[in-house]
Amino acid sequence: MSTTDLSTLYRGYIACLNEQNWPTLGTFVHEDVHYNDKRIGLSGYREMLERDFRQIPDLHFNIQLLVAGSHLIASRLNFDCTPQGTFLDLPVNGKKVRFTENVFYQWRDGKIEQVWSVIDKAAVEAQL
Amino acid sequence: MSTTDLSTLYRGYIACLNEQNWPTLGTFVHEDVHYNDKRIGLSGYREMLERDFRQIPDLHFNIQLLVAGSHLIASRLNFDCTPQGTFLDLPVNGKKVRFTENVFYQWRDGKIEQVWSVIDKAAVEAQL
Repeated sequence: MSTTDLSTLYRGYIACLNEQNWPTLGTFVHEDVHYNDKRIGLSGYREMLERDFRQIPDLHFNIQLLVAGSHLIASRLNFDCTPQGTFLDLPVNGKKVRFTENVFYQWRDGKIEQVWSVIDKAAVEAQL
Repeated sequence: MSTTDLSTLYRGYIACLNEQNWPTLGTFVHEDVHYNDKRIGLSGYREMLERDFRQIPDLHFNIQLLVAGSHLIASRLNFDCTPQGTFLDLPVNGKKVRFTENVFYQWRDGKIEQVWSVIDKAAVEAQL
């Protein structure tokens, strides 16, 4: 797939998350998806995202940087939101925090099959 | 610059770090470089790296994933090393730890002018 097509597909995936359009998630995410080297599968992936939105009602994914290869996308995501209770093992308890996530996605047959994510926990800690 | 040329340049930069070849650092890093949105300049960048190697004598940068655009590179780096004392505000004290860093580099005129890095602090915590 061209890098432009893959970028367009990725923006569609992010729109799907922001709309919490879970029935469409399987259009973008492989049945056998792995997250940080662990197989969680499409259903586990959806559960993870649904949990994220329960924990962070105003969660919104904003793409700051995007680099696409033929099968790999790297994205820097910005978040400006208010996690309830404990988030990343930190007592955020509804405080507004800003943080970023640098994340890689490996694609196969037009779907995400591997995700390697690092969330900036230190930035959240520094705001508490 | 082509994405292949930029990838080659980036691998040269990583080799420079692993050799601790500080006199050559300015070949790869802009005089006015910013790190996580803060201007630290080439001298500040070199000091940061020298400090890293003092704190982690067996520090070695391993590229796991690499995506190059025309002016942007994203890289996932693997580390398997033994930080002395406190590292990322954690009492590592010479324990062997494995962790990753997902990092973006913006290039201008063949040099790195912006770095946006997230290190997986939670992974280090989980090993202590």
